[in-house]
Amino acid sequence: MGLIVQKYGGTSVGDAARIRRVAARLLATQRAGNDVVAVISAMAGVTDSLIKLAREISPEPSARELDALLATGEQGSSALTAMAVNALGGKAVSLTGAAAGIVTDSVHTKAKIAHITPRRIHELLSDDYIVIVAGFQGQSAEGATTTLGRGGSDLTAIALAAALKADDCQIFTDVEGVFTCDPRVVADASKIDEIAYDELLEMAGAGAKVMQSRAVEFAKKFGVDFEVRSSSKDEPGTKATPAPARLEDLVVRGVSLERNQAKVTIRDLPDKPGCAGKLFSALGTANLSVDMIVQNASSAGTTDLSFTLYKDELERAKELLEPLVEELGAKGVTATTGMAKLSVVGIGMRSHAGVASRFFSCLGEAAINIELISTSEIKIAVVIAEADLERAAQATHTAFGLARRAMPAETGSA
Amino acid sequence: MGLIVQKYGGTSVGDAARIRRVAARLLATQRAGNDVVAVISAMAGVTDSLIKLAREISPEPSARELDALLATGEQGSSALTAMAVNALGGKAVSLTGAAAGIVTDSVHTKAKIAHITPRRIHELLSDDYIVIVAGFQGQSAEGATTTLGRGGSDLTAIALAAALKADDCQIFTDVEGVFTCDPRVVADASKIDEIAYDELLEMAGAGAKVMQSRAVEFAKKFGVDFEVRSSSKDEPGTKATPAPARLEDLVVRGVSLERNQAKVTIRDLPDKPGCAGKLFSALGTANLSVDMIVQNASSAGTTDLSFTLYKDELERAKELLEPLVEELGAKGVTATTGMAKLSVVGIGMRSHAGVASRFFSCLGEAAINIELISTSEIKIAVVIAEADLERAAQATHTAFGLARRAMPAETGSA
Repeated sequence: MGLIVQKYGGTSVGDAARIRRVAARLLATQRAGNDVVAVISAMAGVTDSLIKLAREISPEPSARELDALLATGEQGSSALTAMAVNALGGKAVSLTGAAAGIVTDSVHTKAKIAHITPRRIHELLSDDYIVIVAGFQGQSAEGATTTLGRGGSDLTAIALAAALKADDCQIFTDVEGVFTCDPRVVADASKIDEIAYDELLEMAGAGAKVMQSRAVEFAKKFGVDFEVRSSSKDEPGTKATPAPARLEDLVVRGVSLERNQAKVTIRDLPDKPGCAGKLFSALGTANLSVDMIVQNASSAGTTDLSFTLYKDELERAKELLEPLVEELGAKGVTATTGMAKLSVVGIGMRSHAGVASRFFSCLGEAAINIELISTSEIKIAVVIAEADLERAAQATHTAFGLARRAMPAETGSA
Repeated sequence: MGLIVQKYGGTSVGDAARIRRVAARLLATQRAGNDVVAVISAMAGVTDSLIKLAREISPEPSARELDALLATGEQGSSALTAMAVNALGGKAVSLTGAAAGIVTDSVHTKAKIAHITPRRIHELLSDDYIVIVAGFQGQSAEGATTTLGRGGSDLTAIALAAALKADDCQIFTDVEGVFTCDPRVVADASKIDEIAYDELLEMAGAGAKVMQSRAVEFAKKFGVDFEVRSSSKDEPGTKATPAPARLEDLVVRGVSLERNQAKVTIRDLPDKPGCAGKLFSALGTANLSVDMIVQNASSAGTTDLSFTLYKDELERAKELLEPLVEELGAKGVTATTGMAKLSVVGIGMRSHAGVASRFFSCLGEAAINIELISTSEIKIAVVIAEADLERAAQATHTAFGLARRAMPAETGSA
């Protein structure tokens, strides 16, 4: 009993039959005595077709108009979902982001939410409507439609949950929750019942993409608890909370992996201020996403600087770097593809020594060579050969006792 | 030099190449020194796919949500058109009907425009933007998206032209204008330079569908002159005005035809008040569009009542009528398919005798049997066998001198 925000991704509303299934779930949630607000993504494939059409018109479509175009995807699926609820005998209305009171800044294609005035939603809820809000969008103060960036419907849901002081926020996806590792790689990976925002952020950053990172950051900032769960199964998923207290003793929450990485090393870069800045500015301007950056201690006034990026972006990066490397007086650039990243993530690491050594020892015992290491407070990431990735993930998962741990059954209440 | 409203139909924006062509025309119109407002329909086929999707969800989708869904079609094509203008180096923004200030009543799927507050359009025009308005839609006072019915983009254009006091309103379509007859049927049919609103209404009602009738009625009510012209050729089209003075001597403006008609006759209907009302209420409730209705003088207390409708709707009409006919004590229902309607239209008829006799004589000379006759002040329509239609149209077109008349060359100025 309370106010529940449910978010459904594009696959969950991918065709008429799935939309009807979502509608049935919304109605069941309302009939259980709750006020229900749904946030709906565009039907799977729709956003991509719209982007394709825009690119046929112009290689760089104007951001304002791209937003106006893309926002129609979520508006359409929201209207269809409302129709489906009505067809099942319920009462639903769809609202655009603007009509729902979501006001953003004017930075088109990646707008930030400025504030939400959910007056209309409250009115409709008190008239017993299920309120269906088009995800991913808002309106600038000037009245233009804006979008929140890829995956922005997650952010819509979390932000609405905060603005409405919802009792529950459920993110329905095509996975059952967050797992201790990718179940396609590690057969005995298990669903995590509760995860801290920070852990989820690190898992997401490390390739376990169940949620948009900005949405998780927003949830952390405003203390919005939410649950990631499956739209096809009626089972509890993974709850994200500030810091799950009763699992404090757990050191590592999960192992995440990312394939298709390339490693670039700049050899003998003069160890002078500004060198690294120049290199990464050039890559950033070209919109290349650099991931791990590692610089070794310098010797004889030079240093080796390495970083990883997606292998698809390697050629472009090399083209940009080669003249710069010459200009800066470094010895050269070497690039290696066939790399992957493996990370262990867990808040418990902060207070537990020995995680790094256990991680590295386990890889050593499996005779897996570590190419790069990078650590944060709650994550240790290594770059290894992609060919070793599955073996490494299994060994690490076992070494940290993630498979053996019996998961306590969740009741699904908030 | 002035403010020009241009409307482009779905075929004119049917793909990226056509959208770019529309954009080029908008820019050329602006560069000739005009303020430009464009009204854009959904890309050809988009509205039909959205309706199909809605019907997969529900055989009778909720009207409010159907409007929210369908309006996205015009929003998308408007955004794409604005992108195309920007890609060509121009400045354009797209607006939804709501953002353009179009306020309607709350009758979803066939809303009426209540008023237009084009403040935002004026602001953008004074900043040298080409303003692209999504056709077919508005917003109710409660803030819900509404649509104006099929072909509603014509109405958007005419109503905006009235509200903006535009100097010119151009309706771009896939035909070159209004013709004296369908050129596929009558080879020497010629484009009409100027036509009165009333004539256009009668031509439209008689099957020459170049414009939504409601739009023409609106233009008549508010005295908005407009021009129907081709989006693929840069030539003057047909101008619609209150009453083209210099062509006053012309009696018949055009011949229009409508195929696929069925004729229904109720025989020996008791000649009592209320009988016809009962019959047509039943048909109206079932959404069947009855066209010509003819009742002969009664004899012996009974009368024959005939009407035409599309042949596709005949079966449904018969099902509805048969029990009613029995109840009312009529002798029976006969239905004939393979019918067509042929009309001559012209304001000049009002003051010229002899049009009817010339029309009927010409058909008689061609040995074409007339099944029904119906007249209005500026139209005479007959129902004939569809097999005779082309021959009848050619004969009538010639009899009224429509082909021989040399058309004065238009300069294209308003």
